[in-house]
Amino acid sequence: MSTISKLPQPPYYAVIFSSLRTPEDKGYEKMTEKMVELASSQAGFLGIESARGEDGFGITVSYWESTEAITHWKANMSHRVAQELGKLDWYEHYEVRVAKVERAYEHHPPSLTGL
Amino acid sequence: MSTISKLPQPPYYAVIFSSLRTPEDKGYEKMTEKMVELASSQAGFLGIESARGEDGFGITVSYWESTEAITHWKANMSHRVAQELGKLDWYEHYEVRVAKVERAYEHHPPSLTGL
Repeated sequence: MSTISKLPQPPYYAVIFSSLRTPEDKGYEKMTEKMVELASSQAGFLGIESARGEDGFGITVSYWESTEAITHWKANMSHRVAQELGKLDWYEHYEVRVAKVERAYEHHPPSLTGL
Repeated sequence: MSTISKLPQPPYYAVIFSSLRTPEDKGYEKMTEKMVELASSQAGFLGIESARGEDGFGITVSYWESTEAITHWKANMSHRVAQELGKLDWYEHYEVRVAKVERAYEHHPPSLTGL
């Protein structure tokens, strides 16, 4: 998960998931794996990036072709989570923001790009 | 930095900065402090969230009222970085994505919301 996603040119959509984890694990790793697995198999999925510090605060950004793809993923997620994993008690607090990516630019070090 | 920003209702803008750090520190913490300090003092700044795992991969998302505010901040940043901190050799690789946040929703645990 911990790499920069190779994505097409904008526009595309991003779901920014910011969260503070509860101190106990409570199957969190299993949940993360399920989320990534489920996202990757959905139509319109472009990529996912995730980072979490030692303080329990984390950001996961998933990228999608359209808002319709996000809606389908979300509905599917809720269903699966309820069915397989019970309540979402992994987080103290979370916030989800859905955004349209309009511009993107990247930087590789000179040694990789030859510049 | 490691908290969820309290933001107004959408629409607003997000700058998603995904990066892989070089193994050495090279003044990175100082750079991060400068970025946050500079962002916070800019017109149109709404908030900033940041997480970095032990593997060196991190995501920082800053939130802004408008694309104009982002443009001003970016120009100001580049200038300051060049002037004060030299070249950006903190990162192996980074990607910047500018996005318009269209929807947002949050979750607090029942114990905090009373539901």
